[in-house]
Amino acid sequence: MTIRVIGFDADDTLWHNETIFHLSEQRFVELLAPHAPSADLAERLIETERRNLRLYGYGIKGFTLSMIETALTVAGPGLPSATVAEILAIGRAMLDHPVEPLPAVVETLAELGRRDLPLVLISKGDLLDQEQKVARSGLAERFAAIEIVSEKTPETYTRIFGRLGAADGEAVMVGNSVVSDVLPAIRAGHWGFHVPYALTWAHERAEIPAGLARHRRLESIREVPAAIDEIGGG
Amino acid sequence: MTIRVIGFDADDTLWHNETIFHLSEQRFVELLAPHAPSADLAERLIETERRNLRLYGYGIKGFTLSMIETALTVAGPGLPSATVAEILAIGRAMLDHPVEPLPAVVETLAELGRRDLPLVLISKGDLLDQEQKVARSGLAERFAAIEIVSEKTPETYTRIFGRLGAADGEAVMVGNSVVSDVLPAIRAGHWGFHVPYALTWAHERAEIPAGLARHRRLESIREVPAAIDEIGGG
Repeated sequence: MTIRVIGFDADDTLWHNETIFHLSEQRFVELLAPHAPSADLAERLIETERRNLRLYGYGIKGFTLSMIETALTVAGPGLPSATVAEILAIGRAMLDHPVEPLPAVVETLAELGRRDLPLVLISKGDLLDQEQKVARSGLAERFAAIEIVSEKTPETYTRIFGRLGAADGEAVMVGNSVVSDVLPAIRAGHWGFHVPYALTWAHERAEIPAGLARHRRLESIREVPAAIDEIGGG
Repeated sequence: MTIRVIGFDADDTLWHNETIFHLSEQRFVELLAPHAPSADLAERLIETERRNLRLYGYGIKGFTLSMIETALTVAGPGLPSATVAEILAIGRAMLDHPVEPLPAVVETLAELGRRDLPLVLISKGDLLDQEQKVARSGLAERFAAIEIVSEKTPETYTRIFGRLGAADGEAVMVGNSVVSDVLPAIRAGHWGFHVPYALTWAHERAEIPAGLARHRRLESIREVPAAIDEIGGG
């Protein structure tokens, strides 16, 4: 088997993301607690997010709108407008958050770059927000292509990897999400390398089915080059 | 000169968009008027949108966040939480709005489709929202490629048209916006066909410089095939 393309997820694979959402969620809960002491605010927010996914998709703007909606629902007419302004500020701080590569990301991308294998960044979320994160990460020039998508389905991977010249089984997708990165890439006939992140978004928790072919679980992105060698790439 | 690719803007070129924003802006102004009788609400909203473009980009979610921010600013602590809920509802109604092709769009795309020229839809805005509009419009299968972008620069057109095999001067971009569709396509060395829409977004008003080469102004999208013939396409 020859590997011709390597895809990388971005949020929580190349840089922190879920941690920032998690901290923002905590700020939201603290902010609302005085106005809705008995509500399970974190749970209510997750419910609102899930209900709004179809309309808002993934990303910080939709998350901000869901925070406001949850606040209105739990606090009712007693919600001070200053609290709404605070929620807007939480969202703006998230959008403006610095983007720092996770440990070993820079070295690993550099090492893979020396192998003449095209790397493609495949990220889900708000277009502008994701593009700005790629730009601020300083990693953009490592990638032959940058693809921001609204959903990561098997068809997404077939299309993107195919465009870069990878036939069946000739691409590897590296990411922290079993649901978005690993499983759909494998269903598209390619490889899925799972590099777990400390936190997983509530909507994306899933187990790897036992005995799955073309799957590797790595402790760190640092192990990607050796795993590519092992399956016959480069 | 041979034309090899035709690009189409989507919002206000293939279907209504600015009208929906304009009606929503009117609803916003009516909603806020009792709480800020002396403020020039429409002007304040446009200012907020402009300031937030860098952070929120183009699209309905950012527009909704800007409406909320403007409401907080003009009405202050007296802003009822029910009004914030109404603004969220305006945004949701915009996202759920039916997408109907403008007059002559279906026939014109069908006619161009018979010429074996690849058509590409090039649209700016929120990824998920734009994709859903394309799907709901029923026009998706007319296009060889659908590109949602965060900005329309000359580089955007060079990249997209180049990928579809069009060299210098071999592509036409059709759109209602001088700033986003016509001028950057011409600066990229291609053609820009301007099909004005009844309303133009405040941030996108511009004049066509006199004597501009590779530019046509059409009264209707219906005139695109004849204009392509005239410049030597198909």
